[in-house]
Amino acid sequence: MSIRVGLGGVIPPLTTPLDTDGEIDTASLERLCSFLIAAGVDGLFVGGSSGETALLSDSQRYEVIDVAVSTAGGQVPVVAGAVDTGTARVIDHARAAAKRGAAAVVSTGPFYVAPHPDEVVRHFELISRAVDVPVIAYDIPSATNTRLPRDAIVELAESGTIAGLKDSSGDLTAFRQILLATADTDLRVFTGSETVTDLALRLGAHGQVPGLGNVDPDGYVRLGRAAAAGDWRTANAEQERLLRLFSIIDVADRSRIGFTAAALGAFKAAQYLRGVISLPRCADPLLPLVGRELDAIRAILVREGISVER
Amino acid sequence: MSIRVGLGGVIPPLTTPLDTDGEIDTASLERLCSFLIAAGVDGLFVGGSSGETALLSDSQRYEVIDVAVSTAGGQVPVVAGAVDTGTARVIDHARAAAKRGAAAVVSTGPFYVAPHPDEVVRHFELISRAVDVPVIAYDIPSATNTRLPRDAIVELAESGTIAGLKDSSGDLTAFRQILLATADTDLRVFTGSETVTDLALRLGAHGQVPGLGNVDPDGYVRLGRAAAAGDWRTANAEQERLLRLFSIIDVADRSRIGFTAAALGAFKAAQYLRGVISLPRCADPLLPLVGRELDAIRAILVREGISVER
Amino acid sequence: MSIRVGLGGVIPPLTTPLDTDGEIDTASLERLCSFLIAAGVDGLFVGGSSGETALLSDSQRYEVIDVAVSTAGGQVPVVAGAVDTGTARVIDHARAAAKRGAAAVVSTGPFYVAPHPDEVVRHFELISRAVDVPVIAYDIPSATNTRLPRDAIVELAESGTIAGLKDSSGDLTAFRQILLATADTDLRVFTGSETVTDLALRLGAHGQVPGLGNVDPDGYVRLGRAAAAGDWRTANAEQERLLRLFSIIDVADRSRIGFTAAALGAFKAAQYLRGVISLPRCADPLLPLVGRELDAIRAILVREGISVER
Amino acid sequence: MSIRVGLGGVIPPLTTPLDTDGEIDTASLERLCSFLIAAGVDGLFVGGSSGETALLSDSQRYEVIDVAVSTAGGQVPVVAGAVDTGTARVIDHARAAAKRGAAAVVSTGPFYVAPHPDEVVRHFELISRAVDVPVIAYDIPSATNTRLPRDAIVELAESGTIAGLKDSSGDLTAFRQILLATADTDLRVFTGSETVTDLALRLGAHGQVPGLGNVDPDGYVRLGRAAAAGDWRTANAEQERLLRLFSIIDVADRSRIGFTAAALGAFKAAQYLRGVISLPRCADPLLPLVGRELDAIRAILVREGISVER
Repeated sequence: MSIRVGLGGVIPPLTTPLDTDGEIDTASLERLCSFLIAAGVDGLFVGGSSGETALLSDSQRYEVIDVAVSTAGGQVPVVAGAVDTGTARVIDHARAAAKRGAAAVVSTGPFYVAPHPDEVVRHFELISRAVDVPVIAYDIPSATNTRLPRDAIVELAESGTIAGLKDSSGDLTAFRQILLATADTDLRVFTGSETVTDLALRLGAHGQVPGLGNVDPDGYVRLGRAAAAGDWRTANAEQERLLRLFSIIDVADRSRIGFTAAALGAFKAAQYLRGVISLPRCADPLLPLVGRELDAIRAILVREGISVER
Repeated sequence: MSIRVGLGGVIPPLTTPLDTDGEIDTASLERLCSFLIAAGVDGLFVGGSSGETALLSDSQRYEVIDVAVSTAGGQVPVVAGAVDTGTARVIDHARAAAKRGAAAVVSTGPFYVAPHPDEVVRHFELISRAVDVPVIAYDIPSATNTRLPRDAIVELAESGTIAGLKDSSGDLTAFRQILLATADTDLRVFTGSETVTDLALRLGAHGQVPGLGNVDPDGYVRLGRAAAAGDWRTANAEQERLLRLFSIIDVADRSRIGFTAAALGAFKAAQYLRGVISLPRCADPLLPLVGRELDAIRAILVREGISVER
Repeated sequence: MSIRVGLGGVIPPLTTPLDTDGEIDTASLERLCSFLIAAGVDGLFVGGSSGETALLSDSQRYEVIDVAVSTAGGQVPVVAGAVDTGTARVIDHARAAAKRGAAAVVSTGPFYVAPHPDEVVRHFELISRAVDVPVIAYDIPSATNTRLPRDAIVELAESGTIAGLKDSSGDLTAFRQILLATADTDLRVFTGSETVTDLALRLGAHGQVPGLGNVDPDGYVRLGRAAAAGDWRTANAEQERLLRLFSIIDVADRSRIGFTAAALGAFKAAQYLRGVISLPRCADPLLPLVGRELDAIRAILVREGISVER
Repeated sequence: MSIRVGLGGVIPPLTTPLDTDGEIDTASLERLCSFLIAAGVDGLFVGGSSGETALLSDSQRYEVIDVAVSTAGGQVPVVAGAVDTGTARVIDHARAAAKRGAAAVVSTGPFYVAPHPDEVVRHFELISRAVDVPVIAYDIPSATNTRLPRDAIVELAESGTIAGLKDSSGDLTAFRQILLATADTDLRVFTGSETVTDLALRLGAHGQVPGLGNVDPDGYVRLGRAAAAGDWRTANAEQERLLRLFSIIDVADRSRIGFTAAALGAFKAAQYLRGVISLPRCADPLLPLVGRELDAIRAILVREGISVER
């Protein structure tokens, strides 16, 4: 659908707290939502890559939306990922999310298959027609192994098919080209690059979806406010501190676990150490961080002025 | 689970016939199953890449299994893909497939995420424990963008966690190394490379899953029988004819549609021209082949001695 | 060697003008050097990717250095690429360049082979020991298909092995991490990304090596001066104009020529239209742009306020 | 040039023995040539990837050709690599090799740059016109990061521009398609895949260029003779033994050295252990294998029935 949405600001992509059985830890998820809202975020994005959505069952995905919508209680909008390989599958997720109260849904292009740019455009057109909430396109080639074509995004923005773009490509040239090309449209452009958020905002991004915002939402809220006030010196300094904090993702022994477990495991470990969630467990089959890795993360948190409880 | 299965021979990965609304064309699917069984195949593989499983909804996936199991009627086993990004999702699909009568289920490693080899091993262990049918590992890096690590496959075969491997990597060196390394296990090794099936069989493969078998199952059955009889000259000649037939996937105008639509669209176009299915439509968002592309495919079919009805 | 060099500012990577026989057009090269120096650049970088160095013979490479050194006449330093696959080959080029008057030499990591990060470090150590001019590391994964490892760069900066880094990776996160990690060293960090030069300068880059500076050096000099003065609004606006100008690389019909010919051919076409060089020819085997492509480039130049003579 | 050459059989790609200073160890190289000729090979290929040509200086490359031509003394032809990034550079190498007595020269497509298939065709046309010896195209995407397009190879074979193809892509489907498409031409097709040489010969390959032939040339000569005699059972068994021997490339600790050093270092270590060369050193900047890695390689050699002297 083509209803425009005034989304913007800081919308962190929530991790998904799990209990010892690997099921949704709803109490931790509620605490996480409240923790983020208290920090002043402008929305909650559940079911994204940081939420390990690729590793959750459908019922777990829906439970996450329910908890987030309920905890947010209308204070901030809840945006829900509808990440899947093909159009029909995305539509099923998107409809379920909309029914559960999501203010917008987020979809990558098709993956597993190898589509043409015109087929990517058609993918979003079909999704947009099928749901009653705004659709946000999600460019994350590290996960899908293919870029959303720049021309396709511009075409979809001009036709009003997509209401937003979450860019996690790390490519600020394309990001800038898209911002310039869609300046006359209603497209809301979000950066998913938590390490150059200040630069993206300077280029005119409407908002940020920082994975590291799970750990230090206050930092990203401060960064966003400084940017909005045109105080780029403060924004840059805050970003540099957050970049140093980001080194928690380099702590894990990569001869033992993969990149996803190292990065998302570090976010969860930090949330656990801060007392926000009860267990730093990742979804199957990812393996958890171990004691000395948690120690190293605690040391980084303390170094960067983040309070810890464990 | 670890029940061994005597799977082998020709098990084509069925396309999924669709009607004008994009829904499962059950009559065409029944005809396709019967067409393949009549040609002498040893099993039906539904829900694979050739079946556009990445583009089908869950209900469509399950309808396909139901129709195949019902049409096969126990004459040949039905193997079902349980293709998804993560362990919990694969388990849900696998359980549904087993309940519907699938004789075995097929899973890739995790994708969208970036797992460590040990996490890939754990993925299959968890799936195997969760279902009562044999699990077949599926190596298709062109879709998942990551190889199943050779050592992981050997470890999973030795522990009896996986009952089979479907290899669509195109890498005959690794294929051979795995065959040699698992010779003392019960692992059943299948090639998904329809263009070097004869070579894979010569290396000791237990079976073949040829996408082009959708178009000319008789050819692959003849190829398999010649190989089983040690008549490699006939097997090679049959394979060369099939390789020429395979050029139907090069017919489409790639400035208009992507690789998946070009290849699977060609299979469906050929099935349509042969009168097996009623419509050469691909799943959304893939775009269909057009008239002159169908003409070119018809010409290739005729050239290679395949009867056409349209 | 470890002599530090105060390199910085705008150092465009010169294209290599060729005559109808594919030999160096020395008159055009002299004009190009003078054109750039007149615009106020701080150095000339010959033998880089924009100079088609991969396609030039050794004698052509050396002729280019001679002409540049002679034309510069000490007004600005000449930096010379020593791009080749392995250490011994790079050393031969680097020694020849130093002997001809290059103020510094530029080398990628080894390519064609697959080195370990420690072998990359050793590569630069051996080069540095072998030559009497500063060595600049060059990260251009689009050409070499491998990144210079971040830790290797930091280690080489700390030991004083490399005097500079030219980053053409497009990855501003790694760029920023390197700037922060080497802040206490003498490393001079240059961006090769002509589309986000303003952002790189804001992050603290010491200089810029913009390929598009071949076409509009005045623009990049203005951008650099605005940044140095802390006038980021002007820097951003200038960059946005240059980004629109950069669309000349999208003009060529890519069904006919490759990406390198499209991009470098566009730079040369623009230089030709501006009257700086006599022929818009690329090095063999690249195919030239054709008439209507030149027309489209002329239109873009005019649109962005660039004077043309043809 | 278009003179046809009757090349075929076993033409191993020689390693380049180096002394403690990293210079060509001519005595070892002579021993290696004699060792291979005594085993019954049909030619010597110097300056290929196994010869670390990317890491040798021009003078070292030429010294290698001189020693090989001199030692071969006309008993077998010497084929020389002319591996470089661009056309002009390849032509310089090719002319030098031809002058030194090479019977044919070998070139990849352009790399470092990103050429169009038509530019690849032009590359080989220009080389062929420039030299008086046959030109062999070399497809090694693991090194150049780009495939030689199948259609380009067929076009070049049909026009007589190239006399041969050395395929190190590992893709037996394309290999087979090229063999079928060029059956009516004079193209000589060689496999560079030492692990599926038997299969390539079965498909009709005219010869083999096995890197592992540096270690066990007798094995590949036996394999080739069995294949020529139609004794595929013997050919397959010999290949399986050689595949087990090939595991020497998996011995090195990859946390310490890269893939190239691990593989070529293993070949050189085995040659050293067999007494053929005097030192198992790789070219700079590659790091050498260490004692326990040599022990592991010795154990594999002994296990596979290869005599060792150290």
